[in-house]
Parts: sequence; C-alpha cells; structure tokens
Amino acid sequence: MTLTVGIIGAGRIGRLHVDNLKGLQQIRIKGVSDVAAKHLEPWAMEKRIEVFTIDYHELLNDPEIQAVFICSPTNTHAAIIKEAAEAGKHIFCEKPVSFSVEETEEALNAVKKAGVKLQVGFNRRFDPSFRKVSKLVQEGEIGLPHILRITSRDPQPPSADYIKDSGGLFMDMTIHDFDMARYVMGSEVVEVFAYGAVLVDSAIGEAGDIDTAVITMKFANGALGVIDNSRRAVYGYDQRLEIFGDKGSAQVNNNRATTVEISTNDHVKKEKPLHFFLERYSQAYMDEVTEFASACLENHEVSCNGFDGLQAERIARAAKRSLETRMPVSLKQAEQPGTHVIR
Amino acid sequence: MTLTVGIIGAGRIGRLHVDNLKGLQQIRIKGVSDVAAKHLEPWAMEKRIEVFTIDYHELLNDPEIQAVFICSPTNTHAAIIKEAAEAGKHIFCEKPVSFSVEETEEALNAVKKAGVKLQVGFNRRFDPSFRKVSKLVQEGEIGLPHILRITSRDPQPPSADYIKDSGGLFMDMTIHDFDMARYVMGSEVVEVFAYGAVLVDSAIGEAGDIDTAVITMKFANGALGVIDNSRRAVYGYDQRLEIFGDKGSAQVNNNRATTVEISTNDHVKKEKPLHFFLERYSQAYMDEVTEFASACLENHEVSCNGFDGLQAERIARAAKRSLETRMPVSLKQAEQPGTHVIR
Amino acid sequence: MTLTVGIIGAGRIGRLHVDNLKGLQQIRIKGVSDVAAKHLEPWAMEKRIEVFTIDYHELLNDPEIQAVFICSPTNTHAAIIKEAAEAGKHIFCEKPVSFSVEETEEALNAVKKAGVKLQVGFNRRFDPSFRKVSKLVQEGEIGLPHILRITSRDPQPPSADYIKDSGGLFMDMTIHDFDMARYVMGSEVVEVFAYGAVLVDSAIGEAGDIDTAVITMKFANGALGVIDNSRRAVYGYDQRLEIFGDKGSAQVNNNRATTVEISTNDHVKKEKPLHFFLERYSQAYMDEVTEFASACLENHEVSCNGFDGLQAERIARAAKRSLETRMPVSLKQAEQPGTHVIR
Amino acid sequence: MTLTVGIIGAGRIGRLHVDNLKGLQQIRIKGVSDVAAKHLEPWAMEKRIEVFTIDYHELLNDPEIQAVFICSPTNTHAAIIKEAAEAGKHIFCEKPVSFSVEETEEALNAVKKAGVKLQVGFNRRFDPSFRKVSKLVQEGEIGLPHILRITSRDPQPPSADYIKDSGGLFMDMTIHDFDMARYVMGSEVVEVFAYGAVLVDSAIGEAGDIDTAVITMKFANGALGVIDNSRRAVYGYDQRLEIFGDKGSAQVNNNRATTVEISTNDHVKKEKPLHFFLERYSQAYMDEVTEFASACLENHEVSCNGFDGLQAERIARAAKRSLETRMPVSLKQAEQPGTHVIR
Repeated sequence: MTLTVGIIGAGRIGRLHVDNLKGLQQIRIKGVSDVAAKHLEPWAMEKRIEVFTIDYHELLNDPEIQAVFICSPTNTHAAIIKEAAEAGKHIFCEKPVSFSVEETEEALNAVKKAGVKLQVGFNRRFDPSFRKVSKLVQEGEIGLPHILRITSRDPQPPSADYIKDSGGLFMDMTIHDFDMARYVMGSEVVEVFAYGAVLVDSAIGEAGDIDTAVITMKFANGALGVIDNSRRAVYGYDQRLEIFGDKGSAQVNNNRATTVEISTNDHVKKEKPLHFFLERYSQAYMDEVTEFASACLENHEVSCNGFDGLQAERIARAAKRSLETRMPVSLKQAEQPGTHVIR
Repeated sequence: MTLTVGIIGAGRIGRLHVDNLKGLQQIRIKGVSDVAAKHLEPWAMEKRIEVFTIDYHELLNDPEIQAVFICSPTNTHAAIIKEAAEAGKHIFCEKPVSFSVEETEEALNAVKKAGVKLQVGFNRRFDPSFRKVSKLVQEGEIGLPHILRITSRDPQPPSADYIKDSGGLFMDMTIHDFDMARYVMGSEVVEVFAYGAVLVDSAIGEAGDIDTAVITMKFANGALGVIDNSRRAVYGYDQRLEIFGDKGSAQVNNNRATTVEISTNDHVKKEKPLHFFLERYSQAYMDEVTEFASACLENHEVSCNGFDGLQAERIARAAKRSLETRMPVSLKQAEQPGTHVIR
Repeated sequence: MTLTVGIIGAGRIGRLHVDNLKGLQQIRIKGVSDVAAKHLEPWAMEKRIEVFTIDYHELLNDPEIQAVFICSPTNTHAAIIKEAAEAGKHIFCEKPVSFSVEETEEALNAVKKAGVKLQVGFNRRFDPSFRKVSKLVQEGEIGLPHILRITSRDPQPPSADYIKDSGGLFMDMTIHDFDMARYVMGSEVVEVFAYGAVLVDSAIGEAGDIDTAVITMKFANGALGVIDNSRRAVYGYDQRLEIFGDKGSAQVNNNRATTVEISTNDHVKKEKPLHFFLERYSQAYMDEVTEFASACLENHEVSCNGFDGLQAERIARAAKRSLETRMPVSLKQAEQPGTHVIR
Repeated sequence: MTLTVGIIGAGRIGRLHVDNLKGLQQIRIKGVSDVAAKHLEPWAMEKRIEVFTIDYHELLNDPEIQAVFICSPTNTHAAIIKEAAEAGKHIFCEKPVSFSVEETEEALNAVKKAGVKLQVGFNRRFDPSFRKVSKLVQEGEIGLPHILRITSRDPQPPSADYIKDSGGLFMDMTIHDFDMARYVMGSEVVEVFAYGAVLVDSAIGEAGDIDTAVITMKFANGALGVIDNSRRAVYGYDQRLEIFGDKGSAQVNNNRATTVEISTNDHVKKEKPLHFFLERYSQAYMDEVTEFASACLENHEVSCNGFDGLQAERIARAAKRSLETRMPVSLKQAEQPGTHVIR
C-alpha cells in the first residue's frame, strides 16, 4: 500500500521531509507547492518532483493526493488545515498549529468534522531517548513523578528578522519543551510561572522578545517542573531532560558525533553535543513521517495529535502572560473565552 | 601556633567536628559542652576530652579557649553568638545562624562590635568540585553567567518531629542551596518564586511543611536560576549543579564510592551516588575547619562569614513568603523593618 | 554521473549493500547474481532488481556494468576478482580477499594489471569514531604512538558449521582488528604473538578453532599493541580502542541506542552497547560504498585497497602460526615463498 | 587494645605510613629508624617520635614493639625480615620482598618458622574499586573469567639513577600489576610472554631497562590476560582494569579530583586522573595499615601475605626471562632450583 502525498512549503523543513519521504517505500510524493516555486525549480528538477506548483490548491484539488504536509509559514497553517480537512486530506502540520489558541481550536474543529488525521510536527517525541523515557515513566519504572527538568538551548540565535514573526520564544522554541513536558509526564500542566531575560542579543530585546528563560510548572498529578532555555549555547545544541519520581530518576543526555575521548596533559576531552536539530533529531524526523504514513495507511491514531498541538500553545500563552504580569498563571486563566475543542 | 577551641553541642555534627579537629596539628580541643553531658560521658572519655561540661559558659569563661564551635540547636545560636562575641571568642557557627533574619542581624552586630571572626558552616563551599566551579566562574571561564541550575535531594526525609523544629524546608535544607547559588554566581539574589508540594511523606505536610520544591531566582547580574529539592531520592544523596554562561557551561556531578562499572546482559551499571552528606562532604567538613583555624591563627578573612549566613536566610524567608502568597517576592520586600547589618 | 553496478552474492551482506546502494543517487544497481537465485526471487522482485541471475558471468559480461560488489563466499573471492579485473570492472570485495596469502597476491596482481580499482570491505575504517582517531594520530595529536589496545568481542558465537569454513578466528574475526591496528597506528605490524583458548563453546574447539584470544604485536615504528577477542560478550557487541602516545591518548568507546540513564535504589544504569555489527556500523556500511562510488566516478584512490587486504591476511597467518608454534612470529617468517605483490 | 610498632626506614613511604598510623587509635608508634637519622631529626621532632635511631636493631630489641614496618631499600628487606621474625615481631614489608625469588623464599621460611604475621605492601588491593571488583569476581557476578586487561602507567619516569637499583620495570612497577592480576582473577599465572620497548627515555634504555611493555599471561583457570605499562602518561597516573567473563564484565576507571565538566565551543572537558599513587591510593594506604593492625591485634590472616609477594616476584622473573629469550616462559621454567616455600 502506498500513501500519495503533497508537500505545502519547500523551505528548510519542507525539503527535509521530501528527502526523508523519498526513502520510504510506502510513500509516493506526487507534488510540492511553494510560493517561491520559480526560485526552487532546480531543486524540484533534481528531486524529480512530478507536480511542482506555486499554488497549494492544486495539491488539495488533486484526487490522487491522500495527505498533505503543511510546511509553510505558521500564520498560514490554520487556514490551510481547514481547507485540507474540507478536501478530505490527512494532514501533517509543522508546529505550532497557529499563533492563536482560538485559530488552532477552529482548525482542530474542522479536522474533527472532516474525520481526517492530523499529526503535529513535535519531532522530539520520536527521538529514541525521549521516547524511551516516556515509556519508562508510563510503565512505572520511576514510580510517581515528582520533579521534571528540561534543558533546551539552541547553538545560536535566529536573526532579529526571524524573531519578529516567530511568535516569541515561548511559542517558537519553548513550545517543543512544553509538549515534551506533557509527553514524558503523562499529565497536564495546570499552572506556569516564567522568568525571562535578554542576555544573548540585545537585538532580540529590541524586537520585543527574550532570549533566556526559566519556566516553572505545576502538573495535574501534583508534580513540579522546570524548563530552562537559551537562544545560544556556545558548545552546541543542548537537549537534556530528567524526570525524578519516588522509585528513581531517568535522564536523557546529549548525543555526540563520536565517542572519542582524548586525554592530554591539560584535560580529558570529548566531543561537543551534535550541532543543531537537523543533526540531533535526524532519526526522529524520519520516524515521525514513517509513523504518520502508517497511521494514514493502517488507520490508527497518530502519536501526536491536534490536541497536543493545542495544549502546547495554551501553555506557551500562559507563560507569556506570566512573563507580562510577573505572576503565576493557571492554564484556566490563560484560556480566553472562545470556541473550545473537546479532546 | 595552636588554636585552643571549645565545642558547644555534641550532637552528630559536633562530634564530627571533634573527630576532624583532632586530626589537625594546629588545633587543641580543650573542652566540649552539651546539655546531655551525662549521657555522653563514655564518648568524651574515649575521645579524651579534657573539660566536658553541661554548661557552655564554662567554655566561654575559660581564658585559654580562643574559639568556639556552636553546634547546639538552631534556636540557641544567636544568643550564644552574642555571648561568645562578648567573651572575645572567634566563632564557627553551624547553619542557619537563626530562624529569624532580625535575630541573625543582632548576632552579627554583636560579632562586628567585638571584632571577632564568625564563620558559618556552609560546608558545601569547601567541596572540591563546587569550589572549583566557583573559581572558574570568577576567572571568567564560562563568561557572563546566564542560567544556574542546582539539584539538591536528600536520600531520606527526617522524622516529622525533626520537621517541626526545622524552620521548614527552605530554612533547613534549601538554605545550603541558596548559599551555593550566591557562592557560584558571585551575585546577589534579588527575587524568588517558589513552588512546593508534599509528595514524599504526608506527615511532613501535616507538620506544616513541604518535601518537594522548585524555586526560581533572579540575580542582580541579570542571570536566572533554579533549585529543585526533594526530601527523598531513593538512589542516594543528589547534589549537582550547572552554571551556564556566554562562553560555556560548568557542571558538578555526584561522587560515587568506586568507579566500578559492570556490563551484563541487562544493563551497564555503576554505583549510586554517595549516600548522604557525611560521605559526600567528608573532605569539605575537614577543609572548612582547617580554614577556620588558619583564619583565626593568621588573622585573615573567613571564606564564609556572617553576611553570607544572613543573606541565605533572607532568601529562605523570601521563598517561604512566595510559597505562601503564590507570588514572586523580591528580597527587598522580604526584609521587614528592623536592625540592619552593614556588610 | 552514475555508476552502474552489479552485486555478486545476495546473502546477508550482499542484501545490505543493495539497500544502501539504492539510497545513493550516484549509483544504479543493474543486476544481482546468486547461486540460490531461485530462492531469492521474491526479494529481487520487491527490490525491483532489473537483472537477477544465477550466474555472475552475466554481470561481468554486461558492458553497462562498471563495477561489481563481490559478496559471495570467501573461497570464491580470488577467482571472481581475477575475472572481474580482466572484464575491466572496478571491484568492491568483502573481507578477507581469500584464505591464502598467495591467492590474494595473485588476485591483486590481476587487479594491478587491469588497472581497475579494488576496495576491500573493512567497514570499520568508515566508522566516525575510528576514523576520527586515525586522523588525530596522523595529525600528531597524541604524539608518537607507544601502545595500542583493541577490544573486539562479538555478542554471540556463530554456529560450529560456520566456524568450519570461516578460516579460523584470526582470518574471520580478528582480521578486522588487524586492519584497524594498521589503520590507526599508521605503521606496519612486524611481529605477533598469540594466545588462544576455547572458553565460550566447546563445539568451536572441536571444529579446530578457538573462541578467545589475546594477540600482542610489534609495529615498525617501535610501538607495541594488543588485541583481545571473544566470540561472546553477553552485554553486546564490544568494539573499543585506545591509542596511547607521548602527547596523550585517544579512546573509542561503544555506541548505545539511547543516552538514557536510570538511577534506582540499586544502581545507576545505562544501555548496553548496540547489539552487533549491523547496528554499530550502519553508518560505516553506507559510507564505505559511497566512497567507493566516488572513487570510481572521480577516479581517485580508494581508502582501503588490496594491499590493505593482503597485509591483514599476512598478520592473521602469522598469528595462526604463533598459536601453533607457541612462539612469536615475525611477518617476514610468516610469508612463504611465492608470488609477491609490489605495493 | 593497642599495637606498638616501629618503622624501619623514613623515606617517602615510611613517612607516609607514620602519618597514617598516627591517625589510628589502635596504633602506638614507639620508634623510627633510618640510616640518615641525623638528617631527619627535625621531621622526627615535629612528629614527636619517641625513639628515633640510626640502627633498626634498637627497634627489634625493644620488647614493647610488637610489629615493624620495613620501608628501607629493597635490597635490605629479606635480611631484616629474617631478623624481625627471629625477634618475634609481626612484619609489614614494602614490595617487593626482594629482587631474588630465592632470597624471598628464605625470608618467608623464617617468617613461617617464627609464626609471626607478614603483610606485603601491595596497597592497590585496598583500593575501594579494585577491592570491589575482586569481590564481584569471587561472588560469580561476571561468571567464569575469560579475559583480564590491566592498564598501569606512571605520570613520569623515575631518574636513571633510580632505575639502576630498581630491579627493572617488571620487578619495580609491573609487580603491582602481577599481584593485581592474581588478586582479581583468583587464579595463578602459569605462563607469560613479554614485549618491551624504550620509547619514553633513552637513558632508561642505557641503564639496561625498558619503559614500555605489553605482557600477556595465561592463568591456571584457562583465562588469558594482558598488562600494558608505560613509565610516562602525560595526562597522569593511569590505573584501569577490566575483567571479562561469561556472565559480564567489570571495569575500574581512573579517579579524578573533582567531577567538574566544562563545555566550551571547542570540547567538553573533565579533569585528568589523579596525579600519582599518593593521590590515587591515599585511602588504600590508610586501609592497608588499618587491616594489618587488626590482623595483629585480633590474630586473623592478613589480606596480602608473603606467598602473594613471592608469586608476584616469580611472575616478574618469568616476564624478564621472556623479554630476554623472546619466548613465552612458564612459571615452572622460571623457578630455578633452590629452597621452596610451601604455601
């Protein structure tokens, strides 16, 4: 059985998915759309893309295409999700679903109504180490969770230009950590308190954002958690986690390109962590699309659905409000009146 | 040159100091006092203590004794400090100085007036790993600090009885971490926000305390920090730290009794962390008294003075208020009107 | 540019190469041959192999095919190399080239005469960690090498049947380590002394082989080395190396599937090493064929040539003689009169 | 109960024992002798040594002294052991007992006849990590041992002068490793083969010794082993061990002064191993004398007796013969006719 797909958006992440999907026997990439299609012609030729178009509606209208990957800018996600759902396509959407909880709720309702599948691109859930810890926690290996610690630091900050349209640190970067927190804890975040600072690049501050943060969380199961973020760790991409419970603790450490250790008259040295997300999560990126394909073909649940996308956004919004008000914010408070999705 | 000392209080920590001091050539232990002196006679005999008394004033009145170690219950510290200072004795006082910032301020003023030395027993500052990190930060090896993370978990909770007179988690246990935060950051804490929970032992909750906490901090230098505490880590005493700056990061990990690693068909296993503070900080306990002795004999500054004791208490008080009010508390807010010590 | 190839032998390793080569844009697999072609029809169908034949001469006679991968049993390698060389095909040959140094010399002479490329399948040279150490040594990072230690243990022994046709431990298993020794040391082995034992499986002893060995080596540069081998390590595939020199030491440790570390009241546990060569060297298997393809297409030297294959066999032969004679054997002694290849 | 002791020889190791013994309540140091007593007067004063003499017979003749520590040059050990035994003193003797297996046998016979205790100073047996591995092996945790690997490298070579009277690398340095091999394997060495080289310092070669060695061993239980030695590891004292069996493997790694790990934009760095034996084995030096004292006072077996000293010397002699003859040497061959001790 083969799943015929279209890719909407051929930026860095769209092109990554194209490469990964081409390696899967159960996938056929029929078409790719991008607003800069002209510019990308040579790439599309090299990749032997059958249909390459500037207009994603061409993909949505193609009856052969069963599923679409939405890799366009975040502010277009919700609208495309609604159109794709109405066209009866299964959907893989990059994170976040939108910058607005309400928009996301609307999009999820469209998905629900259409009965199609929606997977949100929280790639880290597919990392072998994080996945293993989530499973260990679920199986009770560490007992009842008490404390969760997530460290998540990028090797270098994006440009101030990027920052402006990013939705802010919590919606752009920490959103992965908020999802990870729910994923390994197996319980919802009920309250957050955020400290933020501009320590890496003053241009980020001028763009109205922060580049350093420490966010504490309370979970529904009574556990406490903390995330620390930085936009720049000089030693590389820092992605670690520890979950501590009444029977023990499980940790995930950074991956390195080699295991080489060098002893000199100064120090014993090993390699820095893998540089950034493309290196650290290369396997995870492959596994998330493989699982999406099999969820579509074999009609089972996706591992990371629209509700997961929505909850991460709600936590991000609460964190932002906490930063602004300098007060802890409960998730109930963070939800403004509006349409609600039932899980 | 020899420093003649008296020990006030022969509980666990007092007896530990006796053993350590007996190994130092520059120290002569003249006397020990304890309210339960009767009970401790055999111990005092075995240790060949010259003067063993129920009344510490006997030590304060002995002109040969140049310095006293205050190892009695916390609620007696401030009063004894004042008497000892007036008697012209140098003072080594176990932490915390008192349960009240005001009492501590009063005691410090007495010390200041008498011109004697006061060292507070923040033993962790003398741990070779923490000391090295503090030095590295001071020398700029990690650049400007951005984020501090401290994990501090005990292997088992104290009895509910102990809890009642402990001053609460922040004053009893976290106070070490507050001091450590100031020590490695080289900057004052200006605001704290605390989450607490009772997850380990409901008896602790019934005694009005918490057993699990995550406390975030803002420092005067703009950096952010977080401490996580638990009264029970089944795998042993967990004492780790990481300080992250714009040039790199320095971490301290747990010590283990041996380096043995065993590979089986199940797992690769190594030893748990050293069990508790007596094992983990055995070297630090020795080094703190060695340094106190040389500060007294050679008349130089102690590494950890009364102001350090006071500041840790102020942070503990602010954290407690944060927990009660569910709001961040600035250190200024936390200080109630009263006598103030000038640093 | 594309390299059109044929695969001779579709056993485990032949099928692995097919999968890896199918992922390379610069490679076109035209045909595969196997003596059990009938049996493998379904596999060939699934893989959409164009030409699938019982007779490898069909591939050698195909003018479109530029290079062949020899993955048939070792006792057929030398003859096929000669035929392929005469047919003007570039050759990738699995290790060892043959069980006889003389046969290997003959085959290499045919390759030399034909002017085609020959790469020997010492996959471990392409492992990122070993490759890095080889480079570090070459660049002088550890100074002049003094001592080399290689640990190489399989997770489980092959069947006694396999053992009979394997050429013995040194030719079948240690040959990889002999090649690794030359590769990281950058110097030839001049003498070996071997201890062997049957400790894992008495059936291996009955088949005339050993399953445990410690082999010491002298190198032309004066350095000393040791390899230890076992046919069964219960904790998985154990592939480690250390090279020690006058400026320092470089180590390679085992790879693990995840970085997860679990602390319990018993132990701190991490994962076992990756199970076996397919897992540990998955990247290396991909990289060796990628490099062979580019050596053919861009006409540059292969990283691991026939001489490398020959030298590893010479060391294996010397080690075997040492085991038999219970004496150290110099590589000169180990070479019997016969045809010689000039490097 | 107190053991009254005399120390013969106040060089580096004698003075170390004095310091350690002074910390033990069950020991009274009555006297110290040294041929350079004049020169050492100030040290003896500072340590408040009761009897300080140039002539060790004064100690042997003192009826109060129950045990002596022989810390004089190796060539005096055997004669002093005999005199001490005849004087009825228990004996702690630094390693090696002598440079000649025959002399050692004679000394052991004197000890046997006198019925006194003799402990040989193989301090590494008391290292917590090595001791733990020995125990694990004995308890069957790794199953039947198959392969033993010992790495033992000094941080810097001794002077050529020292080398001349050292007895050679195997008798001076490797002897510790030979003892360790027997200790963790729990089985006798039956054959050795040694490779040696002069790679560190040509002056060592000129003094007739080697500075680098790889020695392989066969054990009575069928296992194989290897020791690698260097007189200079620029990164510090390198003392590691691995024992591999049919149920698993146990490793000992180097100890470091702190657990600090620093991540920079170049590397992740940790501390070098502890500098040398005084640092690495500080605990072991304390524990060996504590155990000797209790063996004497409570009349139980010492952990490391004369036979252990003798066997290590026999292996060292066989290794030396192997190096000279370039052949493997069985322990039987290595024993020349002469007096034999029955175990």
